[in-house]
Amino acid sequence: MNPDIKKEREGPAFDVEAVTNLLDGGRDVTERRRQLEALVENDPEFLSQPLSFLSQSGRYDHAIKRCARMIQQIKKLGLTDPKDISLYKRAVFCGRPCPLDLHLGMFLPMLLNQATEDQLEHFFLPAWQCQIIGTYAQTEMGHGTFLRGLETTALYDPRTQEFVLNTPTVTAIKWWPGGLGKTANHAVVLAQLYTKGTCQGLNAFIVQLRDLETHAPLPGIIVGDIGPKFGFNDVDNGFLKLENVRIPRTNMLMKFAKVEEDGTYIRPPSDKLAYGTMVFIRALIVSEASYVLAKACTIAIRYSVVRRQSQQTPGAPEPQILDYQTQQHKLLPLLATTYAFHFIGNYVSKMYQNISESVDAGNYSQLNELHATSAGLKAFTTWIVVAGVETCRMACGGHGFSCASGLPELYTNSAPSCTYEGENTVMMLQTARYLMKCVGLVRNGILLEGNVMYLNPAFDNRPRLDPQSVASLVGAFCDRASWMVTHVSQGLQSQLNCGKSQKEAWNNMLVELVRASESHCHYVVVKTFAEELEGVQDSGSRAILSSLCHLYALHGITQHSGDFMQAGVLNGEELEQVSKILRTLLSSLRRQAVPLTDAFDISDVQLSSVLGRHDGNVYNALYAWARTAPLNKSQVHESYDKYMKPLQKSKL
Amino acid sequence: MNPDIKKEREGPAFDVEAVTNLLDGGRDVTERRRQLEALVENDPEFLSQPLSFLSQSGRYDHAIKRCARMIQQIKKLGLTDPKDISLYKRAVFCGRPCPLDLHLGMFLPMLLNQATEDQLEHFFLPAWQCQIIGTYAQTEMGHGTFLRGLETTALYDPRTQEFVLNTPTVTAIKWWPGGLGKTANHAVVLAQLYTKGTCQGLNAFIVQLRDLETHAPLPGIIVGDIGPKFGFNDVDNGFLKLENVRIPRTNMLMKFAKVEEDGTYIRPPSDKLAYGTMVFIRALIVSEASYVLAKACTIAIRYSVVRRQSQQTPGAPEPQILDYQTQQHKLLPLLATTYAFHFIGNYVSKMYQNISESVDAGNYSQLNELHATSAGLKAFTTWIVVAGVETCRMACGGHGFSCASGLPELYTNSAPSCTYEGENTVMMLQTARYLMKCVGLVRNGILLEGNVMYLNPAFDNRPRLDPQSVASLVGAFCDRASWMVTHVSQGLQSQLNCGKSQKEAWNNMLVELVRASESHCHYVVVKTFAEELEGVQDSGSRAILSSLCHLYALHGITQHSGDFMQAGVLNGEELEQVSKILRTLLSSLRRQAVPLTDAFDISDVQLSSVLGRHDGNVYNALYAWARTAPLNKSQVHESYDKYMKPLQKSKL
Repeated sequence: MNPDIKKEREGPAFDVEAVTNLLDGGRDVTERRRQLEALVENDPEFLSQPLSFLSQSGRYDHAIKRCARMIQQIKKLGLTDPKDISLYKRAVFCGRPCPLDLHLGMFLPMLLNQATEDQLEHFFLPAWQCQIIGTYAQTEMGHGTFLRGLETTALYDPRTQEFVLNTPTVTAIKWWPGGLGKTANHAVVLAQLYTKGTCQGLNAFIVQLRDLETHAPLPGIIVGDIGPKFGFNDVDNGFLKLENVRIPRTNMLMKFAKVEEDGTYIRPPSDKLAYGTMVFIRALIVSEASYVLAKACTIAIRYSVVRRQSQQTPGAPEPQILDYQTQQHKLLPLLATTYAFHFIGNYVSKMYQNISESVDAGNYSQLNELHATSAGLKAFTTWIVVAGVETCRMACGGHGFSCASGLPELYTNSAPSCTYEGENTVMMLQTARYLMKCVGLVRNGILLEGNVMYLNPAFDNRPRLDPQSVASLVGAFCDRASWMVTHVSQGLQSQLNCGKSQKEAWNNMLVELVRASESHCHYVVVKTFAEELEGVQDSGSRAILSSLCHLYALHGITQHSGDFMQAGVLNGEELEQVSKILRTLLSSLRRQAVPLTDAFDISDVQLSSVLGRHDGNVYNALYAWARTAPLNKSQVHESYDKYMKPLQKSKL
Repeated sequence: MNPDIKKEREGPAFDVEAVTNLLDGGRDVTERRRQLEALVENDPEFLSQPLSFLSQSGRYDHAIKRCARMIQQIKKLGLTDPKDISLYKRAVFCGRPCPLDLHLGMFLPMLLNQATEDQLEHFFLPAWQCQIIGTYAQTEMGHGTFLRGLETTALYDPRTQEFVLNTPTVTAIKWWPGGLGKTANHAVVLAQLYTKGTCQGLNAFIVQLRDLETHAPLPGIIVGDIGPKFGFNDVDNGFLKLENVRIPRTNMLMKFAKVEEDGTYIRPPSDKLAYGTMVFIRALIVSEASYVLAKACTIAIRYSVVRRQSQQTPGAPEPQILDYQTQQHKLLPLLATTYAFHFIGNYVSKMYQNISESVDAGNYSQLNELHATSAGLKAFTTWIVVAGVETCRMACGGHGFSCASGLPELYTNSAPSCTYEGENTVMMLQTARYLMKCVGLVRNGILLEGNVMYLNPAFDNRPRLDPQSVASLVGAFCDRASWMVTHVSQGLQSQLNCGKSQKEAWNNMLVELVRASESHCHYVVVKTFAEELEGVQDSGSRAILSSLCHLYALHGITQHSGDFMQAGVLNGEELEQVSKILRTLLSSLRRQAVPLTDAFDISDVQLSSVLGRHDGNVYNALYAWARTAPLNKSQVHESYDKYMKPLQKSKL
């Protein structure tokens, strides 16, 4: 082990294993996770060369090989608990996306949730056994977050009792679904249903895409890969053009909406039924975001204690770069953010579970808040995580730019989380719409509960900020949110008073509405982090997490000091105090940085980073990695004889 | 042409061609640029498939082919003016890096600047004719920005009159030089010179790496590619390990420093001689940063008028996404930033030229300011541009993630500018050191000139901010910088008063020092933009540029409102006014957005983006692009028969 990193691990101020167990959700969960990871990491079939050495086709090939092995092993090992399967799958792909993600995560669940008994009997077992491999085809080339704009049509033909599916325009071509390009032989296709001369809006249809024997596309199906992307290059995101494709009536998912033989359409009992899955996926995205940031912080912080630079004292060794305040200021708040987002991920998951139970009992009253909170937190966390991964990458200097660091791919694979499952700006505006509704309720004399209580009129005036107290800082975030939300609502009102329409007023205030949502989400995150601390039994864990929470809150204030000052929560002198305590905290957390990344317990295989190695032997590993890189297969590249030699020999 | 984008070009508020000429530096320059671009774009040898379809080796092959053709054509066309060569080269590589960058941009200039007459005679012509292809090997695996830490040694052996070069450790392996991996057969190697038992510090040596006939590495030379990177994958960034490599004494670049036959070392007359090239390159980086952002804005803004989303009025078409205030707020300030950075690029270049002339006349007095300003502005602009390109990419939603958009590669190829030629945080601290020196001078009663005049004691108290006046806004940036610089200097002083050492005090204030430098740079950029407006002859151009300058300044204040409030330049009410005027400006500049990108005059070939096409026919082009993507070479990928079919047939 590199002596610098070894020293970092001597005598941490807390019990690393206790924090690991806390993050995992119990000692037994930690052990189970390690078992499953070991099953993957000790399986010779799962050994591979660095993925960045492969072409796109080679990466896809590699991913499919792992998919097949994974499915085989899941059955062989008898894994049936969804949590086990999910941990095993994450270990197989080291957290990267895979071509079966939509088959496992959307196609199978959609069958379970929206198929009739007959449909389940027909499709589920073959799909579970991968004879049917499905995907979920929703977005189109010209249509993303605004679902009602989708153009694909499904026309019911009562004579043959079939739907005829078509892609009427170029913009209607299905675009992006994972696994659609080369892997899937079926898709759930979202299309505008036309029956009896009327459009009944979006419905879901199971469409067979490829022959089950030859895997060749069926007639009328034009399908393929959408080409290389920033990241996600293990996955064949695909396009699909439908030309008069006929499917039987019974291929429409008809648990809720129905088309009868004569073409009569029966509406679903509620259109809120889709909310559940959406919220569930957003909760997953928040948790995943925290895991990605944990990886990036682990890499950057470990490298920052191995890397030495500049000479402060003649003759003395160059300092570890983590000893520079600027480096601490880049990385330690992100480390604190990782913990904050871990807890907010748990929070959204719990909220989802609680409200699902209410919904099952027929109570839809909390759905709006759940929807608004999960939308906003999805946007809030992914924006920060994606930018944070880049901060970590840049904090590693030149070597962060090498694929060996693992950071480029961590970035490109997480970047889409700002766009998919609801584009972030649109998500923030959905939260804003909810917040504006809440303000309206208060105006009508209704008292609010939960995270928006701060909008109630009786809300207390707080004493001035005490930057040493986490509770006082939470209060500051609350007051800022309250001011921002109220202020933008007043802005909307004054636009209306000037004679603007609702639509105009709303569009004129979009930027401020997003800011208000962000301040609301920020408050929820800080508050949840602080509340979670109270439940931590182990005092050492609680102490270190309190410091991280403190750091997270102080850093948030310095990054948005204008907001806090505008809201009257903070003055210049107090900001000065905040900055001062922040600096002290950075310096005291410096020594705990490596143990705090160790607590994430991410194995070297999972981390896939030369810079983030647990043993800190960075430079030898980097050299070894480079020597096997594709351009080094020969000493002289073929282009030399083809182009450079003739140039050198030519008389110019 | 797409009707939406056509409409955007109807009746712009200014003469697009006049702004193009202004940006180019004259109508004749625009014409020359277009001629040279046409020479490339009409040359069938320069046609190519999309680069993202190629493997790393394929991309390198493609780049070398273009290099050879380019060198041939430069000579055939008789291009000798460095500006022509630079424009032609940029056109050939569409602004991407190429394997000969260090040969053309470092190796040849180093010969010209640091070689003796004899050395020039020996090396220059073969290098100019590409028989010798060089690179510049400075950074090592363990050593980047801190040059004195370099470990490579050159030991003078007077018996044979040779230097013996060695790589004593793994961290001393040369790492990163462009073209070093496969292309170059020579390198200028920076090494610690040992002669007569003494280390004389860094000197530059010409080392032959490969046989001139076979291109095979010479004995003792271990050379290769450092492997795949986030971007820059056309370039063979390389490593070099030297094992007792002997070169003649005459291969040390000896125009300034010298080693005589007996090993006597003669120091160079000044160690500031290296400043010039460094500043020159930083000026280039600033200009290049603006060009990169121009491309990103062109792509995102054009796509934002073609893309339509959501329904605001039932029955009406979905609005163009640029009509949303949030989209305007993402893109239009970046458009303004592009113009601001164009002018600051010119400013640094001019400053370099003026001061070079003084230096040639033996006057080194302004070197410190030049060095500090160029370092800070390099960091300031590249940070903002790199983040801005990502903002543009994300503003394009899902399609921004496709390589077809051109944005992923624009990002990955520009991202290293934050790291190379001086890591940005280190650069900002160099500026800070200069600013602190200036404060010290003022304390000693010396009056400052130039951009730091605001530190002089007699500096006027300004009237309150008038957010409608650009001059008043420049004043606000000035006052903010003044407050921040003074404040951090007081912070340092109070640390010293508490008994901290200089070094401790400095390290305790690093974060605030960077902030102070940023505020100084921000002021210089706003001030320069405002000053440049005064020189614009064409009134239409001046009006539109004034609006952009206004937008740039207002947006800067909202993004750093906490600083301005802390400095006492801004209160809550004034901030409210600033935000309001900013919103109005966004809405009025909305109509000029496409013409303002047209004024950059970047051809479709140069832009290499399906989303940024001049004709706006985005969707058909995207579909056509995808259909030729590598995974679509066959309908059924080979991995199906290898892995999935056996899985499907197996009895699990």
